[in-house]
Amino acid sequence: MNSETAENKTDKTTKTPVTVIGLGNMGSALAATLLENGHPTTVWNRSAAKAKPLVDRGARLAATSEEAVAASPLIITCVLDLDALHAVMDPIAGSLAGKDLVNLTSGSPEQADEAAAWAGSLGLGHLDGAIMTTPPGVGNPEMMFLYSGSAQVFEAHRPTLAALGDPLYLGQEPGRAALYDVALLGLMWSTFTGWLHGTALVGADATKATDFTPVAIRWMTHAVAGFLDTYAPQVDAGRYPGDDATVDVQIATIGHLIHAAADRGVDNALPELLKATMERASAAGHGSDSYASVIEVLRGERRDTLRV
Amino acid sequence: MNSETAENKTDKTTKTPVTVIGLGNMGSALAATLLENGHPTTVWNRSAAKAKPLVDRGARLAATSEEAVAASPLIITCVLDLDALHAVMDPIAGSLAGKDLVNLTSGSPEQADEAAAWAGSLGLGHLDGAIMTTPPGVGNPEMMFLYSGSAQVFEAHRPTLAALGDPLYLGQEPGRAALYDVALLGLMWSTFTGWLHGTALVGADATKATDFTPVAIRWMTHAVAGFLDTYAPQVDAGRYPGDDATVDVQIATIGHLIHAAADRGVDNALPELLKATMERASAAGHGSDSYASVIEVLRGERRDTLRV
Ligand SMILES: NC(=O)c1ccc[n+]([C@@H]2O[C@H](COP(=O)([O-])OP(=O)(O)OC[C@H]3O[C@@H](n4cnc5c(N)ncnc54)[C@H](OP(=O)(O)O)[C@@H]3O)[C@@H](O)[C@H]2O)c1
Ligand SMILES: NC(=O)c1ccc[n+]([C@@H]2O[C@H](COP(=O)([O-])OP(=O)(O)OC[C@H]3O[C@@H](n4cnc5c(N)ncnc54)[C@H](OP(=O)(O)O)[C@@H]3O)[C@@H](O)[C@H]2O)c1
Repeated sequence: MNSETAENKTDKTTKTPVTVIGLGNMGSALAATLLENGHPTTVWNRSAAKAKPLVDRGARLAATSEEAVAASPLIITCVLDLDALHAVMDPIAGSLAGKDLVNLTSGSPEQADEAAAWAGSLGLGHLDGAIMTTPPGVGNPEMMFLYSGSAQVFEAHRPTLAALGDPLYLGQEPGRAALYDVALLGLMWSTFTGWLHGTALVGADATKATDFTPVAIRWMTHAVAGFLDTYAPQVDAGRYPGDDATVDVQIATIGHLIHAAADRGVDNALPELLKATMERASAAGHGSDSYASVIEVLRGERRDTLRV
Repeated sequence: MNSETAENKTDKTTKTPVTVIGLGNMGSALAATLLENGHPTTVWNRSAAKAKPLVDRGARLAATSEEAVAASPLIITCVLDLDALHAVMDPIAGSLAGKDLVNLTSGSPEQADEAAAWAGSLGLGHLDGAIMTTPPGVGNPEMMFLYSGSAQVFEAHRPTLAALGDPLYLGQEPGRAALYDVALLGLMWSTFTGWLHGTALVGADATKATDFTPVAIRWMTHAVAGFLDTYAPQVDAGRYPGDDATVDVQIATIGHLIHAAADRGVDNALPELLKATMERASAAGHGSDSYASVIEVLRGERRDTLRV
């Protein structure tokens, strides 16, 4: 805790009062961080027992959800899913007008659109957010919180949101944060699975995961991240010069991976799919282009139909 | 170029003379970097014309491959593949005894084992290497060059190898560098494809790749890399506590990705495979474990058969 935080603790009156609804792992981390940053914090959860550690740290436990939303101008919700959000909020819909709602419950872009329409119909300011970390990362300014929806709500509460993590505003379209969220999670699962495949491969030759992983992380953060930087403008331009490494060269190289993994009994479904995807790109005329050209076969038939 | 390099340029005699065989994109970058670092550098390529820019920068062009290997105690080879290496080296096998060979030609672990046996039979010191960057990254000390094979050759030439990139020695087993290489490339292709899928997804809603990618890189380098750090000891321990996020929760969440992508005409083969893989882990009893437990289903039947 830095000195600014310590100062804030003694000066609660300057900080926006916040109500946190939903005290699962994530909601509890959000409320704890707001308390640490000196926000008068009111909490509510379906199972009241989960509020105990927060009350011990200075939170006020509302007796009802209605009392909870009455306590603060800013309501942060973080429950399991959109159904749970409706289960909590629909019974008290009449008391929400004039409040600002920042919904950090995960969902699909379409659900965020729907929640924004619902909030609008109740006279509620609405921002949809996606938390790009786990509960222990809350409060770390390196971690991203993505927001989309009302620019007014975002600007009004930016200092409060900044206590939770680095707030990135993606624009007025309510579903944009959720769309980024699933896109980034897809990148995470792909990366995880590629890493686990590699870990299984070197593990078959008695290399420990804790020996391989620092090399893998360095490779990702220095080299692979640099390739993405190079490839992103290629995607926007729709031109993919293959000066560094071509799709056809990568198709040849992935054969070594598949062979080495097969030899060691490691499941090859992922590299086989990657190879097939590269081969589709090559068959579509991108054999001499960079890997970025693979996006052309992922976009499918609707590639020219930009939405919005 | 730093002052040390400038000094070296005027003091060639202290630097090991090196012969580089193979002057494609990568071999040319290696030779250029050695020249910049003050090594007396002899070059040879099947097509001699490619030596011209290097000769202009001070390299000596050998008239024959035999003359090339005679010129230096250290021979670095970087040709297309192992067949090309044999095509160059077999005719001059008799003149190789006593030399040290660092082979930076990519190949499978089994090919590296084979090359080591071949080198041993000729009385040639042998180190196999994998270059974890593209030609413009050669000479950048953040980029990794992985080596395995003779510890003597590695130690004798560590300062020379350090001019090319950060040299990591992985042990005496010749194939280890090639095994890491394919494992890391697998991670790269997985990451690339996950990133392209996400880029296609947000692109369908008119987000540019150059807007999405900085967020994706930050997510990878800060959050995802941190998860790998957390998961690696879990893999070694064979216990995967799911306190942060469980496989079953991720299975629910990937549904949002698949739905959003299907809606936008983006090919879902990759997320469908990732989901099926998670479902296999859940069916194997890992539903409440972390994502790291997915390695249990990738390892397949031979998971307890450690090699070496
Ligand atoms: N954990 C993470 O790493 C992480 C990261 C990013 C985003 N998120 C998102 O954050 C949200 C919360 O996640 P979490 O990890 O805190 O989950 P959690 O620990 O399972 O907590 C779920 C919360 O939802 C409440 N809830 C569930 N069904 C309800 C219903 N029908 N009515 C009222 N309340 C209901 C629970 O109340 P009870 O206590 O009464 O059951 C609890 O407060 C999710 O949308 C998740 O995707 C989580
Ligand atoms: N480029 C990269 O980003 C990168 C990264 C890591 C590793 N590597 C590895 O580095 C090695 C070289 O790659 P590169 O990018 O330099 O490829 P390249 O530009 O295509 O050059 C290939 C080299 O191999 C030679 N060669 C091919 N067949 C031969 C034969 N039968 N006999 C003699 N020489 C032959 C070529 O000679 P000619 O000029 O006479 O054709 C040329 O010198 C490959 O194993 C590659 O996987 C490359």
